[in-house]
Amino acid sequence: MTSPDSREQVHRRRNPLTGRHVLVSPHRTQRPWQGAQEAVDTEALPAHDPSCYLCAGNVRANGEHNPAYDGTFVFTNDFAALQPQSGFQAEGDSLMQARPVAGECRVLCFSPDHGKSLPELSPEALRAVVAAWQAQSAELGQRHRWVQVFENKGAAMGCSNPHPHGQVWGLDQWPDEAALEDQHQRAFLADEGEPMLVRYARAEQAAGERVVVETEHWLAVVPYWAAWPYETLLLPKAHSLRLESLSAAQAADLAEAVRRLTTRYDNLFQCSFPYSMGWHGAPHEAGRADDAQLRHWQLHAHFYPPLLRSATVRKFMVGFEMLGEAQRDLTPEAAAQRLRAVSDTVHYRHAPR
Amino acid sequence: MTSPDSREQVHRRRNPLTGRHVLVSPHRTQRPWQGAQEAVDTEALPAHDPSCYLCAGNVRANGEHNPAYDGTFVFTNDFAALQPQSGFQAEGDSLMQARPVAGECRVLCFSPDHGKSLPELSPEALRAVVAAWQAQSAELGQRHRWVQVFENKGAAMGCSNPHPHGQVWGLDQWPDEAALEDQHQRAFLADEGEPMLVRYARAEQAAGERVVVETEHWLAVVPYWAAWPYETLLLPKAHSLRLESLSAAQAADLAEAVRRLTTRYDNLFQCSFPYSMGWHGAPHEAGRADDAQLRHWQLHAHFYPPLLRSATVRKFMVGFEMLGEAQRDLTPEAAAQRLRAVSDTVHYRHAPR
Ligand SMILES: O=P(O)(O)O[C@H]1O[C@H](CO)[C@@H](O)[C@H](O)[C@H]1O
Ligand SMILES: O=P(O)(O)O[C@H]1O[C@H](CO)[C@@H](O)[C@H](O)[C@H]1O
Repeated sequence: MTSPDSREQVHRRRNPLTGRHVLVSPHRTQRPWQGAQEAVDTEALPAHDPSCYLCAGNVRANGEHNPAYDGTFVFTNDFAALQPQSGFQAEGDSLMQARPVAGECRVLCFSPDHGKSLPELSPEALRAVVAAWQAQSAELGQRHRWVQVFENKGAAMGCSNPHPHGQVWGLDQWPDEAALEDQHQRAFLADEGEPMLVRYARAEQAAGERVVVETEHWLAVVPYWAAWPYETLLLPKAHSLRLESLSAAQAADLAEAVRRLTTRYDNLFQCSFPYSMGWHGAPHEAGRADDAQLRHWQLHAHFYPPLLRSATVRKFMVGFEMLGEAQRDLTPEAAAQRLRAVSDTVHYRHAPR
Repeated sequence: MTSPDSREQVHRRRNPLTGRHVLVSPHRTQRPWQGAQEAVDTEALPAHDPSCYLCAGNVRANGEHNPAYDGTFVFTNDFAALQPQSGFQAEGDSLMQARPVAGECRVLCFSPDHGKSLPELSPEALRAVVAAWQAQSAELGQRHRWVQVFENKGAAMGCSNPHPHGQVWGLDQWPDEAALEDQHQRAFLADEGEPMLVRYARAEQAAGERVVVETEHWLAVVPYWAAWPYETLLLPKAHSLRLESLSAAQAADLAEAVRRLTTRYDNLFQCSFPYSMGWHGAPHEAGRADDAQLRHWQLHAHFYPPLLRSATVRKFMVGFEMLGEAQRDLTPEAAAQRLRAVSDTVHYRHAPR
């Protein structure tokens, strides 16, 4: 057992999912900040915004009207990065190589309520979001090798509309992160005889110091190798390949775990906590997956939030980080402790004063 | 030769330096932008700012006075991420692995003039910056395995002080990007008998379509695999391992190439163009480098600028990019063309009206 003092010294941790590293400089949070300030997202929004293209009944960029939906609502992105067909002609040599890629991009509205992000949804509404994640993953998995379910939340994460929504992209190739995680999880199973993240969840549950939320079936931790200050990894305790392989009990409990995790996030700096989050599960291989060959995969979600010290001061992954490697200013253990110190039940906006 | 039409279709390009990919979706620049706006940096700043801790004669955070410097000025970062010694005790198993890292972080002021960034410096002052890059690389290379010379410019890139300055970090380990580039360049030389980027510069010079600046000894291109909209790669035409291996003529011409490249950047959106830039050269291995074993390396600088459409609208590398892979909204060829279309000689701030 390493002494806590040792962890206050500069060190470098390894991410076993990707092989990348992070430089940990815990003394550095002391430096004064005179740089950019983020806009704070504390404003309460109306339940319906007539100018929002995601609200029920409103008109979208392509002229279509959204239905009067009352649960979740999915449509094809009007400005999709991926198209069902690509006329690109493969080109290249050992230096300049390119090939066509085909796919589709969907938008998933979490709720008709313009003003409520995940932690503020009712338990039923949050279960509907989990069900939509599952249904999208299953459906797009029939025709795409990789399905990426994700959410960009907050202006700091490039989100251009506060209406609670995520995205689902399906494509005919594994993106880089998928390929990296496949490779490292595969090697771990071969070497150690157990899927990496199944073993990891057990180790974190036992250690406790990086746990942020624990429910019956789920565990959220600031991973030992977290790059972003308050990054978390959300894991089922049991081995599960994909969102759609979860049992009804695991799915219902996932809604609860997400509520508790995002409530802690919002309470940390008393703001609508920005992040990019998304699910990594076993590849679908366009519905033809031979799951016996994919046992090394364990379903998980990454949450990558940018904030560092307050609602307005973020971490910049620039300079050394882009040219060298990720760097962080507080230990993952300290981050987990701060998240555990705020309520996972009462959201600051609804707290009695 | 691929038809330009084909390149307007969605495709995926490979970065031979890192093995990573970028999804190119050229049709996507059409989408309307309702998200975050960056602050525009168009304001002219005074030559001296009494409250700036980098200006000559002023007091720094640690109470020291800066000298009355009149060229470049280097000092140890008062809030250094790396320290000369680390008391961290290595820990870990196959899942959670960490070890100590030691190094140092310096700040390099480019000029006493608070208000002038690189493209606005006089030719002599810019040559002094190149000389300082060379001297720092040589000096820190005597005691560190890796020396990272870089600059974060602009609030959008986490820069907290507009005074023109960069940083130099030396450390006793190769950061991830260094290790990746080493691996890919090494394999290329073994397979193809020539250093990757020496061959690449020749190919780009011949093709012309991605060239942004060409001087006698240098070439700046939007690389075929650029992830950021206006990313560039700055390369010597001759094979050179490190900054300090450049001849006097190459060094003087580098100042000219940097002036022309950064002038084009500022002119593109008529603002002080933000970026993170930095140099990758052969590792120093703490002065013990056996350069015959490092012939696969070619010195180069990466410029990673965040802006996409205007001085206020940036590209967000979030969601799909963090969980999948980089994605861009215009082809590298189109980006190079736009950069070539603006002056590399007259800076917009000094243009006759
Ligand atoms: O060292 P600075 O300028 O205070 O800080 C800036 O550059 C560093 C090195 O790229 C980053 O780690 C910081 O996130 C960034 O804000
Ligand atoms: O699709 P949106 O929300 O318009 O756009 C946002 O998410 C995309 C997917 O992560 C990114 O490519 C964009 O840079 C970002 O602004």
